[in-house]
Amino acid sequence: MKIYDISMEIQESMTVYKNKEEKRPKRIITVGKDDVTESRISMDMHTGTHIDAPLHMIRGGDTVENIDLHKVITKCKVFDFTNISDKITSEDLANKDIQNGDFIIFKTRNSFREDFDFEFVYLDKSGAKFLKEKGIIGVGIDALGIERSQPEHETHKILLGAGIVILEGLRLKDVEEGEYFLYTAPLKIRGAEASPARAVLIKEE
Amino acid sequence: MKIYDISMEIQESMTVYKNKEEKRPKRIITVGKDDVTESRISMDMHTGTHIDAPLHMIRGGDTVENIDLHKVITKCKVFDFTNISDKITSEDLANKDIQNGDFIIFKTRNSFREDFDFEFVYLDKSGAKFLKEKGIIGVGIDALGIERSQPEHETHKILLGAGIVILEGLRLKDVEEGEYFLYTAPLKIRGAEASPARAVLIKEE
Repeated sequence: MKIYDISMEIQESMTVYKNKEEKRPKRIITVGKDDVTESRISMDMHTGTHIDAPLHMIRGGDTVENIDLHKVITKCKVFDFTNISDKITSEDLANKDIQNGDFIIFKTRNSFREDFDFEFVYLDKSGAKFLKEKGIIGVGIDALGIERSQPEHETHKILLGAGIVILEGLRLKDVEEGEYFLYTAPLKIRGAEASPARAVLIKEE
Repeated sequence: MKIYDISMEIQESMTVYKNKEEKRPKRIITVGKDDVTESRISMDMHTGTHIDAPLHMIRGGDTVENIDLHKVITKCKVFDFTNISDKITSEDLANKDIQNGDFIIFKTRNSFREDFDFEFVYLDKSGAKFLKEKGIIGVGIDALGIERSQPEHETHKILLGAGIVILEGLRLKDVEEGEYFLYTAPLKIRGAEASPARAVLIKEE
């Protein structure tokens, strides 16, 4: 069993969305008697590798602790779209093997850049609509957002409105296109619109 | 595939160690334009279900982002010790099937109580020493700590000093003794002595 860790490391100088300072995680460390170390973290729910729940973009939407774990502990398909420079559209997806119940993960050129790229590759609304019609259960991407440059956040709303899990902030540089088992689960935070999550891909050897 | 969620829910009024107010998680929620909800959490690394790394109790010890994922994504054995009222000792473990490389999880009467029990069932240092000698890779318990009432924190130090992962704050009320596959991974927080983690057990059907 080979485990690919596809998570970003959480630390104070990490890449955050649009480099906004207020989105950085902060940690307070205390060392007490007997060398006991304890610490506390303050972080945005969209820090690093994380899962979005419907509430993030839909008023009254469902929250992260209610996500069906079968949607995030499941087989998945990684597609290599490193040739795309702007956005993933329905045309890009048309020839791919996408079935009802699939979890789809996009590897793009985003995985090869550690700083925040304001022109990151994203999933176009046409692609989101295509995936919804196929009946997928989840979609992951190697950017801190699954969309940019769409004023009404259509990609988020199409996916979240259909109960499709969104997994953002993946690191896929060392992962090849193919089928894997995905394990990623949000922290069970009551009422939250998102949660950081460790994400791994597993390949049986 | 049946998934048992064995995690505590994280929320402001949850049970925290010794009911210490400063250990409670706090969340700040903002709703911006277009109904976009975002939030931030401040929480202790030992909140709810979490993993301890060596640094928690050992000066200069290794930190949570370096834990070998094969130690926390692995088959495991759940033992029912709900008959024990105080602590789990080497004698309690002597007749159990414990092998080199095992991940051992203790279900105790702690799983049936939601408030903080100052007399929670814990793993005695004799039990920790026994498990270390057996060569296990990890140990989990349904209390917010794996020990209490041991002035030098011997249980923690024996386990962490041997590179044994400690998983605390499990909820095992609905889980029967037996063998499962365990999925739990800490957030990849650089330099941290511990991390909250979602924890699940899987049983193939």
